[in-house]
Amino acid sequence: MSDFSLHPFAREGADGGDDDRFHEECGVFGVFGAQNAAALTALGLHALQHRGQEAAGICTYDGTQFYTERHVGLVDDNFTKPSVIARLPGDRAIGHNRYSTTGDSGIRNVQPLFAEFAGGGFAVAHNGNLTNALTLQKELQRRGSIFQSTSDTETILHLIATSAKEHLVDRIIDALKRIEGAYSLVCVSEKKLIGCRDPLGIRPLVLGHLDGATVLASETCALDIIGARFLREVEPGEMVVITPDGVESIRPFESQRSRFCIFEYVYFARPDSVHGGTSVYNVRKRIGEELAREMPVDADVVVPVPDSGTPAAIGFAEASGIPFDLGIIRNHYVGRTFIEPSDQIRNMGVKLKHNANRAVIAGKRVVLVDDSIVRGTTSLKIVQMVRDAGASEVHMRIASPPTKDSCFYGVDTPEKGKLLASRMSISEMASYINVDSLAFLSIDGLYRAVGEARRNNDIPQYCDACFTGDYPTVLTDRSGPNNIRQLSLLSDVS
Amino acid sequence: MSDFSLHPFAREGADGGDDDRFHEECGVFGVFGAQNAAALTALGLHALQHRGQEAAGICTYDGTQFYTERHVGLVDDNFTKPSVIARLPGDRAIGHNRYSTTGDSGIRNVQPLFAEFAGGGFAVAHNGNLTNALTLQKELQRRGSIFQSTSDTETILHLIATSAKEHLVDRIIDALKRIEGAYSLVCVSEKKLIGCRDPLGIRPLVLGHLDGATVLASETCALDIIGARFLREVEPGEMVVITPDGVESIRPFESQRSRFCIFEYVYFARPDSVHGGTSVYNVRKRIGEELAREMPVDADVVVPVPDSGTPAAIGFAEASGIPFDLGIIRNHYVGRTFIEPSDQIRNMGVKLKHNANRAVIAGKRVVLVDDSIVRGTTSLKIVQMVRDAGASEVHMRIASPPTKDSCFYGVDTPEKGKLLASRMSISEMASYINVDSLAFLSIDGLYRAVGEARRNNDIPQYCDACFTGDYPTVLTDRSGPNNIRQLSLLSDVS
Amino acid sequence: MSDFSLHPFAREGADGGDDDRFHEECGVFGVFGAQNAAALTALGLHALQHRGQEAAGICTYDGTQFYTERHVGLVDDNFTKPSVIARLPGDRAIGHNRYSTTGDSGIRNVQPLFAEFAGGGFAVAHNGNLTNALTLQKELQRRGSIFQSTSDTETILHLIATSAKEHLVDRIIDALKRIEGAYSLVCVSEKKLIGCRDPLGIRPLVLGHLDGATVLASETCALDIIGARFLREVEPGEMVVITPDGVESIRPFESQRSRFCIFEYVYFARPDSVHGGTSVYNVRKRIGEELAREMPVDADVVVPVPDSGTPAAIGFAEASGIPFDLGIIRNHYVGRTFIEPSDQIRNMGVKLKHNANRAVIAGKRVVLVDDSIVRGTTSLKIVQMVRDAGASEVHMRIASPPTKDSCFYGVDTPEKGKLLASRMSISEMASYINVDSLAFLSIDGLYRAVGEARRNNDIPQYCDACFTGDYPTVLTDRSGPNNIRQLSLLSDVS
Amino acid sequence: MSDFSLHPFAREGADGGDDDRFHEECGVFGVFGAQNAAALTALGLHALQHRGQEAAGICTYDGTQFYTERHVGLVDDNFTKPSVIARLPGDRAIGHNRYSTTGDSGIRNVQPLFAEFAGGGFAVAHNGNLTNALTLQKELQRRGSIFQSTSDTETILHLIATSAKEHLVDRIIDALKRIEGAYSLVCVSEKKLIGCRDPLGIRPLVLGHLDGATVLASETCALDIIGARFLREVEPGEMVVITPDGVESIRPFESQRSRFCIFEYVYFARPDSVHGGTSVYNVRKRIGEELAREMPVDADVVVPVPDSGTPAAIGFAEASGIPFDLGIIRNHYVGRTFIEPSDQIRNMGVKLKHNANRAVIAGKRVVLVDDSIVRGTTSLKIVQMVRDAGASEVHMRIASPPTKDSCFYGVDTPEKGKLLASRMSISEMASYINVDSLAFLSIDGLYRAVGEARRNNDIPQYCDACFTGDYPTVLTDRSGPNNIRQLSLLSDVS
Repeated sequence: MSDFSLHPFAREGADGGDDDRFHEECGVFGVFGAQNAAALTALGLHALQHRGQEAAGICTYDGTQFYTERHVGLVDDNFTKPSVIARLPGDRAIGHNRYSTTGDSGIRNVQPLFAEFAGGGFAVAHNGNLTNALTLQKELQRRGSIFQSTSDTETILHLIATSAKEHLVDRIIDALKRIEGAYSLVCVSEKKLIGCRDPLGIRPLVLGHLDGATVLASETCALDIIGARFLREVEPGEMVVITPDGVESIRPFESQRSRFCIFEYVYFARPDSVHGGTSVYNVRKRIGEELAREMPVDADVVVPVPDSGTPAAIGFAEASGIPFDLGIIRNHYVGRTFIEPSDQIRNMGVKLKHNANRAVIAGKRVVLVDDSIVRGTTSLKIVQMVRDAGASEVHMRIASPPTKDSCFYGVDTPEKGKLLASRMSISEMASYINVDSLAFLSIDGLYRAVGEARRNNDIPQYCDACFTGDYPTVLTDRSGPNNIRQLSLLSDVS
Repeated sequence: MSDFSLHPFAREGADGGDDDRFHEECGVFGVFGAQNAAALTALGLHALQHRGQEAAGICTYDGTQFYTERHVGLVDDNFTKPSVIARLPGDRAIGHNRYSTTGDSGIRNVQPLFAEFAGGGFAVAHNGNLTNALTLQKELQRRGSIFQSTSDTETILHLIATSAKEHLVDRIIDALKRIEGAYSLVCVSEKKLIGCRDPLGIRPLVLGHLDGATVLASETCALDIIGARFLREVEPGEMVVITPDGVESIRPFESQRSRFCIFEYVYFARPDSVHGGTSVYNVRKRIGEELAREMPVDADVVVPVPDSGTPAAIGFAEASGIPFDLGIIRNHYVGRTFIEPSDQIRNMGVKLKHNANRAVIAGKRVVLVDDSIVRGTTSLKIVQMVRDAGASEVHMRIASPPTKDSCFYGVDTPEKGKLLASRMSISEMASYINVDSLAFLSIDGLYRAVGEARRNNDIPQYCDACFTGDYPTVLTDRSGPNNIRQLSLLSDVS
Repeated sequence: MSDFSLHPFAREGADGGDDDRFHEECGVFGVFGAQNAAALTALGLHALQHRGQEAAGICTYDGTQFYTERHVGLVDDNFTKPSVIARLPGDRAIGHNRYSTTGDSGIRNVQPLFAEFAGGGFAVAHNGNLTNALTLQKELQRRGSIFQSTSDTETILHLIATSAKEHLVDRIIDALKRIEGAYSLVCVSEKKLIGCRDPLGIRPLVLGHLDGATVLASETCALDIIGARFLREVEPGEMVVITPDGVESIRPFESQRSRFCIFEYVYFARPDSVHGGTSVYNVRKRIGEELAREMPVDADVVVPVPDSGTPAAIGFAEASGIPFDLGIIRNHYVGRTFIEPSDQIRNMGVKLKHNANRAVIAGKRVVLVDDSIVRGTTSLKIVQMVRDAGASEVHMRIASPPTKDSCFYGVDTPEKGKLLASRMSISEMASYINVDSLAFLSIDGLYRAVGEARRNNDIPQYCDACFTGDYPTVLTDRSGPNNIRQLSLLSDVS
Repeated sequence: MSDFSLHPFAREGADGGDDDRFHEECGVFGVFGAQNAAALTALGLHALQHRGQEAAGICTYDGTQFYTERHVGLVDDNFTKPSVIARLPGDRAIGHNRYSTTGDSGIRNVQPLFAEFAGGGFAVAHNGNLTNALTLQKELQRRGSIFQSTSDTETILHLIATSAKEHLVDRIIDALKRIEGAYSLVCVSEKKLIGCRDPLGIRPLVLGHLDGATVLASETCALDIIGARFLREVEPGEMVVITPDGVESIRPFESQRSRFCIFEYVYFARPDSVHGGTSVYNVRKRIGEELAREMPVDADVVVPVPDSGTPAAIGFAEASGIPFDLGIIRNHYVGRTFIEPSDQIRNMGVKLKHNANRAVIAGKRVVLVDDSIVRGTTSLKIVQMVRDAGASEVHMRIASPPTKDSCFYGVDTPEKGKLLASRMSISEMASYINVDSLAFLSIDGLYRAVGEARRNNDIPQYCDACFTGDYPTVLTDRSGPNNIRQLSLLSDVS
């Protein structure tokens, strides 16, 4: 889900070095038929914390009533108190992590969103982004619907509420047929837990099993933490309806080729997760191996930009035979609010998070391995830091192709004009970040790392729009005016 | 406005001695055409704080955008910081005070409520209570409307949003024609400030003028604080539409006889306010005079139960010739959270707020004057305290008739069965609270104090349902089932 | 107790109208031999809240260990939670209320202060102000004592800690003999509850009894709230040592004539308290009667400036035969943080707290009765407000002599130059505050009201330095340099 | 510094897996002669955050006045706001990080501690622990000193305050000669910045230089972050006195052999720091190499327990030729307050922080490398997790000798009886944690890794008491009674 008023391509990063990465915007989780459903959901959200750190919410149903807790902050800081879990009784629950945004981050935008329909209560949590949400919102407002958040997820709720169909599942299908874009949804009603994935399966959603309970989660690492067994992925365009009678599979859409987000493998997913039967960690190591083969370099040490570059660096080191060492040490105590305290010490950003390990670097020819270059501001500083620590040469190897285009499918990316690779050639970039050599993985190399022979340019096997500009859906809101002012029924309160 | 889920008659009082009074549930304020509209509104709400202490909100419009701030707590604690006022630019504003509730007091129920309609933004603040809100809510939900609060005020918003009319004023009239009960509304749109009063004018609403700006307020004391001039009352059934062109008066309803709430004179209104051309303070003094004439007593000192009994006690003392003295001292530092700290010192409630002034009371025959008896629990303790301080006799005189019935028009009252006067005769009550004599003002005495010859029993001049059970409107929700579960899209968050 | 760094005469008032009154700086309470000692102390402090609203603290001892809780804010907001009381076990306790200060109000200055002496733990709470604290502090620092607060109370602790005597009582006496000024102390050690009053008895301290427990309190109203019986006052220069064996009276000082603060009668004490066998309320009524006799006026209505002027106004009305009416209505919801929100509505201060009751005032000749004039800023605004409400004449009668001098004995007063009466004659003051007539009570009238024939100018019966400049003690710190920089071991933390 | 009342050996760990490690208790930093001294200190403390996460404080002097800010929480969360830095003017500053404690963690124990001496202000920050603090405290209390914290650091302040010497440096030397144990101190007075290290140099302290300013810090990584140049270590038993005239070196003690804490190399220090001219990262890699040589194993993959085991695992992999892989993924979003939410999911601790990376582990013979075993509870869970992920064999290699004894020199360790190695033989431990083999580095292997030929058993080159029980100082407080009750003048407040 994303904010209308903070459309991803308009966001300016705020924190230390993180603003120079793409960011997954949400993680979702659901469980049906488990005592302690809320506690399991809290654990699942904890394991999915990398998909969104701004806020989290859980909604449960205990056979009589729905209960919701939504809090700004990390899962651990809010959902681990017994008092909070005790306020969330029931054997079914859904939960949601939301990515940190700098602007309109009011609690009203924290999910799950709940609505009381004429037929009963209903809650939804959403990972993804609709590309026609503004258009639909205007239409719904003309019809008399009142919006209370700036979230595209609420559009889905209103579409379900105003559907002419009688039964809930039909009303949801009605709504899904009107929305465009990327979505993995988990929903809970009085009778059902429901999971849906958009027809292209852009965002992930997996199905698991734990002692008679059924589990939905964005990634398999959320199954691992609760000891659940992985069953299968929810398929692109599939709706799974979970009741005490089991899991029913519904296919509201015509069959299409999957276009799973390839960047999940590059950066978003946790390395211990498995997507499409493939270990994310192994893909990243293979990326490093491909990179070493495609873009070799004569050097003394392979140094990862921690932590995201580490698996690719291990792969690069193994394939190249150059030793692997921790030449950059990461400080894990970087707070969320660090503001550079004065002019004199401006541009400290990267030093707050990383320090060069001089003993490993001094006098060495260093291969730096990072997952991607977004604006280039972080790379610039890291390279300088490595040079200041005495590296004789610095060669940068990037574990993905150049990122040239914005994502409209639930990923926080700068607008195209701010992406370094959309403004410069590779040699210009090398000069800008001041490296002795710079190389990116080829698009086909990336496809090889995920197990394909090469990219099928006619019908690509993955969504790789950020590398290719090849968007797999129409972008309705992008065609029309999208400056709709958004003021909610509920404004921020302290 | 009132909560569905906390219908007034179901509320249990929580704090010290206050739970033994009726409570006005809201105050409203609006201003159009004034620089510093938000600051003026904050002052107006400060003057109306006695009408609601739980929360307050202000919504402004600056010609481009709406701004809303809503906070739990007193006006002074939230709306006096320059930073808050600075977040509320614009030359028109509405504001709202909400009464303290013990249960579902989430911020989503704090007013003003705002909605983005297809035709533009709109905010409303409401004093009163609808008697068919639940019935309308169910109907709206069947149509696809999603409610986010448990407030009847939101029902009004949805009725306006879904009206088939084109223009805002017509849509509001459409909505008003469907609601029943008591309401004084102030609304702000992109072009207008609007005030409405229900056809019977149960709750107050006055119109004032300040240096070219137009002001709406629940009471005249809110005009006084900003130096505004009182123009007139908004009349029962009248809608005033304020634009830069002036004040337009619209009358959507057939003319009816007014039924203003007589309890506003007895207790709710501030003594320095003027309603219907009559000073509240003077009515209360006349009540005391009537009471001294109707129910005289031979005694040494007239002692008010502070502060609400004071004007009537002054009137009683003047009419009876018995000296007036402060025989009970009130501690104004009673916090909102006082919990009796242990069994040993249980029932301290009244002592936290009041102490007998022994020097005035010891050895004296005391006339205690209070405004009303609700449950009787406070009277019981006050009488005991006065006896413990050495009073030789205690005579209680009540400045209103016995309160036998609940209010459904925006006043917080216990359910009928908990009202002492609905369960006991006057002599039983005298015995229960342990006084030497107990007397209430007669209903005709009360009408005389407000300037009538007597109550017109055919068409009463006021709403006096709490004394007579004579409700001036139908009570639709009371006829049907009203246990609709209420869970909002937005639950409480910390 | 007072802050060194915020010596009373240097304090600038901050809040609405209150800055234009003198303020008592502290209230103290102690109990020995009662279950729920902490709960009783919380109630006692609640009843003494008028003596200090900034912060409060309680220290208990349970036979094994001392427990302390100190909080910024009102007693009710902090000491009424069962969890807080549960953290204060023991059958003996002392407590303290501290007056609101605008500057150095760190929690380290909140009392009681505790120290671990070689012989065991010891806590102290102090009402008053030492006039040689700075001088002693410098001497103690030279000896190696480390101060952690800016409170003169800590000086007492260090004097006890460094005394060469062996037994605690002797060490305390040793300390008392070195300090000057006004003090009423309550102390708790592992074996004893101790109360002390300075040789002149400037500040009050009373002794009470409750079911076998012994109680110390600043005023009798704190006995009333817990149902304790008043035994007697702790006498000037007396130390009472309370153990399970009873109350031992020690007199470390030569006998002197008492110089109790006469302003306690005028304003500080609660009207329901009794000092020196005399009801404060009755003194204030008699003040009004004296004033009516000394300074009569032909008028239509006597109006108190609420609430402190009310008893004197009742006395004035009774003695003069002019009717008493509430011509000014006080808003009791004035928050602690009200900031005037903009230039346009500057000088709203007095209107936030008071509104003229036009129905009582318009066209009338009004006698306004107030307790004192400090800076005159409030009087100015009140008079204007009464005139704006249509009064034909305004006559101000003040229930005390002109306040011309600062207090150095634990009362918050502006420096002398800011006291209106030190800068102007009475007729100049009348002109400044814009009244038709202004009159103060004479000093002998005040002495008559408290039961004396007149002031004994050789050896005055009371401390009346604020009216006469006749200070009953030396003022050591005032003679030397007193700009000692104060930085504590413990600075403010959030 | 450590708490008296929470002596290290009595502490029970609270959080997830961290309670199963030793913890450094503090980090210190100081700077003299730099604009923005406070900002530089905040950065230095940020880089030293791994040495203490509970609280931090900074004290500055601007030529006129001292300023102190002390906050519970991380440096980044408190000391990065411009408003906080602005409250800390001056060109000299000291700062302190404090380790998280579970019990008496009141703000009064947060450093730096400040005292106003007769000769001027003085602040101190302390890393280490005195072994005779209780004994000295009792003596000082008998003399009349009042303690306000439970920190041994305050003892140093009182010793300085009560010294008979005249000049500050002499007073400090006087104090140092009376204390025993481990300490690295940084102090600031009105004229000087002073650093001291105990005669054995147990805790680290380094001297650096930045554009004319002089810097003191616990580790070199704190010099790196501000771009300061490393000059030298403060030597054991040395006091450096920094003034505008330069750095004066004073040696109050007779020369002794250094006994630097060898565990700083094993775990405490950051890998990018350099101690004694030796890179901590390189020592850890060499430890892994020694371990591979001393305790080889036939296996398929070397997996570090992240993050502390990683350098040793890289060294082990290089020396053994077995591939290195990230077989355990660490979740860096573990909050500080995670409480296991229910019985059903008890023992989740380790899973919150770590997940096995099945793709790397399944079917493999795994060598797990960790830095130490404390209680063994974490090892037990990690091994089980690795087995559950399908490892065919699990061999544990520990990068230090068995930890059999508590530390009394400023490190948070369980009491001896809770150390697994003090209760079990290695084979019992292997059986307890359920590994196929378990081996520790030998004590001589550890000495080789730090560059010695072997341990000199007569005069060991390092303090290795936690491995050998060979304490380099007397432990005075351990001989006598140490149950002194500690209640401070200042108790906790909310």
